[in-house]
Amino acid sequence: MRGLLLVLACLAALPAVADEGMWTFDNFPSSAVKQRYEADITPAWLDHVRLSTIRLTNCTASFVSPEGLILTNHHCVESCLAELSSKDISLVQTGFAAPSRRAELRCLSQLADVLVGSENVTAAISTAIAGLSDTAANDARKRTLTTLEQSCEQASARAKSGKLRCQIVTLYQGGQYFLYKYKRYDDVRLVFAPEADIASFGGDPDNFQFPRWSLDFSVLRAYENDKPANTPNYLRINFDGLHVNQLVFVPGHPGSTARLQTRAQLEFDRDLPLPITLMRAAELRGRFIQFGTTNPADARIVQAPLNSLQNAIKVRRKQLDALNDPKLLTSKTEAEEKLRESAQLPGADPWHEIESATARERILYLDYSFLENAAGFNSGLFRDARLLLRGADERTRPNVDRLREFTDASLPAIQRELYAQVPVYPELEVLTLSLSLERMREWLGPDHPVVRRLLSKESPESLAARLIAETKLDDAVVRKQLWQGGKAAVDASLDPMIEFARAVDPEARAVRKRFEDQVEAPIAASAQRIAAARFKVYGTNVYPDATFTLRLNYGTVLGWVENGSPVEPFTYLGRAFERATGASPFKIPDRWMKVKDQLNMSTPFCISTTSDIVGGNSGSPLIDAGGKIVGLMFDGNIHSIAGHYWFDGSNNRAVAVHPAIIREALDKVYGAKALLSELNAT
Amino acid sequence: MRGLLLVLACLAALPAVADEGMWTFDNFPSSAVKQRYEADITPAWLDHVRLSTIRLTNCTASFVSPEGLILTNHHCVESCLAELSSKDISLVQTGFAAPSRRAELRCLSQLADVLVGSENVTAAISTAIAGLSDTAANDARKRTLTTLEQSCEQASARAKSGKLRCQIVTLYQGGQYFLYKYKRYDDVRLVFAPEADIASFGGDPDNFQFPRWSLDFSVLRAYENDKPANTPNYLRINFDGLHVNQLVFVPGHPGSTARLQTRAQLEFDRDLPLPITLMRAAELRGRFIQFGTTNPADARIVQAPLNSLQNAIKVRRKQLDALNDPKLLTSKTEAEEKLRESAQLPGADPWHEIESATARERILYLDYSFLENAAGFNSGLFRDARLLLRGADERTRPNVDRLREFTDASLPAIQRELYAQVPVYPELEVLTLSLSLERMREWLGPDHPVVRRLLSKESPESLAARLIAETKLDDAVVRKQLWQGGKAAVDASLDPMIEFARAVDPEARAVRKRFEDQVEAPIAASAQRIAAARFKVYGTNVYPDATFTLRLNYGTVLGWVENGSPVEPFTYLGRAFERATGASPFKIPDRWMKVKDQLNMSTPFCISTTSDIVGGNSGSPLIDAGGKIVGLMFDGNIHSIAGHYWFDGSNNRAVAVHPAIIREALDKVYGAKALLSELNAT
Repeated sequence: MRGLLLVLACLAALPAVADEGMWTFDNFPSSAVKQRYEADITPAWLDHVRLSTIRLTNCTASFVSPEGLILTNHHCVESCLAELSSKDISLVQTGFAAPSRRAELRCLSQLADVLVGSENVTAAISTAIAGLSDTAANDARKRTLTTLEQSCEQASARAKSGKLRCQIVTLYQGGQYFLYKYKRYDDVRLVFAPEADIASFGGDPDNFQFPRWSLDFSVLRAYENDKPANTPNYLRINFDGLHVNQLVFVPGHPGSTARLQTRAQLEFDRDLPLPITLMRAAELRGRFIQFGTTNPADARIVQAPLNSLQNAIKVRRKQLDALNDPKLLTSKTEAEEKLRESAQLPGADPWHEIESATARERILYLDYSFLENAAGFNSGLFRDARLLLRGADERTRPNVDRLREFTDASLPAIQRELYAQVPVYPELEVLTLSLSLERMREWLGPDHPVVRRLLSKESPESLAARLIAETKLDDAVVRKQLWQGGKAAVDASLDPMIEFARAVDPEARAVRKRFEDQVEAPIAASAQRIAAARFKVYGTNVYPDATFTLRLNYGTVLGWVENGSPVEPFTYLGRAFERATGASPFKIPDRWMKVKDQLNMSTPFCISTTSDIVGGNSGSPLIDAGGKIVGLMFDGNIHSIAGHYWFDGSNNRAVAVHPAIIREALDKVYGAKALLSELNAT
Repeated sequence: MRGLLLVLACLAALPAVADEGMWTFDNFPSSAVKQRYEADITPAWLDHVRLSTIRLTNCTASFVSPEGLILTNHHCVESCLAELSSKDISLVQTGFAAPSRRAELRCLSQLADVLVGSENVTAAISTAIAGLSDTAANDARKRTLTTLEQSCEQASARAKSGKLRCQIVTLYQGGQYFLYKYKRYDDVRLVFAPEADIASFGGDPDNFQFPRWSLDFSVLRAYENDKPANTPNYLRINFDGLHVNQLVFVPGHPGSTARLQTRAQLEFDRDLPLPITLMRAAELRGRFIQFGTTNPADARIVQAPLNSLQNAIKVRRKQLDALNDPKLLTSKTEAEEKLRESAQLPGADPWHEIESATARERILYLDYSFLENAAGFNSGLFRDARLLLRGADERTRPNVDRLREFTDASLPAIQRELYAQVPVYPELEVLTLSLSLERMREWLGPDHPVVRRLLSKESPESLAARLIAETKLDDAVVRKQLWQGGKAAVDASLDPMIEFARAVDPEARAVRKRFEDQVEAPIAASAQRIAAARFKVYGTNVYPDATFTLRLNYGTVLGWVENGSPVEPFTYLGRAFERATGASPFKIPDRWMKVKDQLNMSTPFCISTTSDIVGGNSGSPLIDAGGKIVGLMFDGNIHSIAGHYWFDGSNNRAVAVHPAIIREALDKVYGAKALLSELNAT
């Protein structure tokens, strides 16, 4: 579970059963927990856990010392490691241990946000869209979100607590809107990461598998004003962990689920995005793997993007399997009929309206994904070019009139991305860009107007090679100049990648507008009506679909039964050595082999729990009722991938690193005395 | 349409509409043609066309001179060209023109079969399986097929006409069985092939597109006793071609259709084989393309397999689109309900029985495809090893007890394949084998027993590299010794690839047996009952699904309407030069550029017709009512791919090379005087 899944458009809510549920902190079912497990989850407990939990760029983490120390997964810092690497040395492969605080390395683009406050703004949105057509409501809603975020940020900037990031989250398919306020740390430094061979022992074959032996942890530190941040809210670690059946909680940021998308939306996913994305991703995996066979340097630079791609492939592959399980669609139909029957909604049937919208989406899908979602222009430098081009255009408009990703609240993150001098590997850029151009020609056809314009005199390979060779956008100084120069500078730019982005922008914006009006707007309107029906029938005994915002769930340490055989919820170090083949991804690093005799082979390694988590929860602390960390979530079992669409408590399991193996490794393999001491482990 | 599609298990028949239909020669609807087009298709006409038409290994062809000259597509001889190439020179790229008959180059594995007789043996099969359970009937049927083929071959060997190849074809889902008798030419030589750049101008982007400008033709010659074969039945070419709306016929060997598979079978295809095969093929495409970027020699050796793969991807991709079109499955359900209603079958519902069988097939699918279909062992040398291993085993058994692919009638083709010293490129073998092992580990999981046994101490890459480096099976002499040495030699062999094939054989055979008993047998029994129902309701006004056996259809020269715009049925040479970009696949060869001024730019290039063809019809002559060749089929438009499942006469079009461009090219570009003369073109 290497990263946050693509956030899908539509949210949902469903009656919870067993320990299912990704609850918002304001609606956590403390009484149900009390009743079932006799544990007291108090408002103070919730506040402390919330303020100790961190949202990273695409993961979760937690503070584990009062001096800003952060615990998360190795795969959550892989992009930081890769950005600090080069063709000659890969920190992903070698790992990293800062010998002193001064040697802690600043990540170039990692951010750490803590949710310090929230406000229900549903009424303001409802007022703004009342009585409007679907399309007008869709526009008015976005303008209102922008206005509210802007007011919030301006107010916080005037307050003595300091400026906050304000972001509205849409819950329950538009049934609720909350304004979330984050304290942001933009100086995050690398403290410790083990070698990839042990952090992701088992690699892609073992990804989403259990039993498991992956030491998927790493340590960062938040800084403020060039000093370790003062973080009074942090979680202590219980290195002994827990026993089977004990109660556990997971705070974190599940990225995206689609549990109450309608049947029509799931059929759309099954028929178009999943198989098409899988085909493109599979081919790119082939290109990456073959590219990496050429020499060790190429293998090094391709490792991080390849890992992320392989994870995405496994996720989508099992999502497709889930949608091909007739039980899923049947139960979906039954749930829809039951709700339709119970709610007795007046007017047009919203499930039918959504079905009509997905029929239109089928027609728009290829153009939308290749042109607007840039599946045809897969290149970091193209992404920069489009950010510069659109950013220049959008910033000339009033804040509320901009595309949502360019509102004032969004600009600091864009700016940070553009200004970071991350390594660019031209050979990989040519690879991904030429492949995506070629597939765009394949899928849209050689006679599509955009394809004809781009490729009638150049091949995908020669066009990609020329653009990457001649653009200057790989230089952060050039990007900064263009961003600061605004529309005049970008309009005057002859950089070929800017020109290329400019050439495809009218069609990309046009298909986006068609998508918003014909698909997004009617789905939003109907989804909101379904959400209202669900509140009416099921009350607040529901939780919203995941939105990469803070949630809390509860569950227990537990295995499951696979093909009639029980799977125990713990693994131990000894078996990792037995499983090793000597070759990645089943290679135990030399450093471990050297001290093998000193290691306690009975050290617990990984744990499985019933926690209801998905991608985005990576790095979440697994905590006990006392608020102590008893594990570090990093994955789920293979059945957990279907959790995107439904939660099957009989076999959906989350997978965590046991704290005992972290202590064993830091102590005996890495000799990280200071770190152990800061973690109170000595 | 570069090759024969995989032949699927189940055949079907459906009432014909418009010019739809792949008719057997014994049931050609001459009266319908007479009524609609006033053309007389006599038995003599049918005999002459049948005896002039050739089945190649995976294509169709026709005799075009009394001295064994054969006309077919360039892409049908691509494997012959590749077998005669090396890392240093690619005949696929350069083309080939024999300066004299002595210089005609023998293809290493091409065969040419002509259907000289046939016999209805349905009664014998029915008798053999009467009263048996599904599983027993399935076994008895196979034994009877073997017995009948054996008797036929033995009888022909005693006759003075000479030994024939006998093969039983299952028509109408087991509604009919015919014993087909072929005269085989096993000495087929290369006479002429143009450069790939003009033969497949437009490449993969233009594949299955029209308008089109691909000179996809080549010329072979059949030899007997080292002399050009005497072929009194041949087709003359009318180099002027035909006009729009004129009546045309296509004799040939459509490979496989699934037009009356049941809804459950189509849903199985949609959910498992198509997406899974597409993912694997897409990744292999990525590997191949990246491999070819390394240097020109690598690009040369990967070209032929890459072309074939790209074709398969496009076909399957559009098949998946067809199955995702709700109209298709709805019409399928309606047709099933109508037939069920009309036929009033007693006993268990056969559609439901097939649905149950496909539910079992879903469970077996991954094991079956990776282990028995060798999706986990993608290597020509593994294929050789399995042929040797199983061939040695099977030949110790009585003919009727063998796996059907090892009956006496099948041995000559296997032997020919094993003895041919075709080039083996170890780097490509390692690529395909390591990838397939890796994907087997991914899909079956690292803890599948076979995966554990093969990969617990070696990585896919190191295992593949070792097997390919150490096996001697790349040497045809070694293969011949092992084949001739039989079971004793193979049992004693320590060749690592033989040992590898031996290691996976028990599981592969076991899953095959489960598949045959649990899936194949009940589907065969139920499909036969559906076929009987269809005969009862629709009589003989039906045609069987394609089986890569000889068929004839009729249609007209016609375009269609695409998105409201008419597509004309002819293209002309001039537009090819306008479409050229200078880079493959839109590059016109230098040889053409040099004589550009002498070429008649108004020469017709390609034609579209309503002919109902699919893969396997590649190389079919397009003939007029007088039996003259007026085109050379090589492809269909994009809508024709859905023809695997249904025929939509409004937009399904076949695509042929116009004979005028063949004459123009041979005359002005290649100066092939002797060939033109033999074709009566001068």
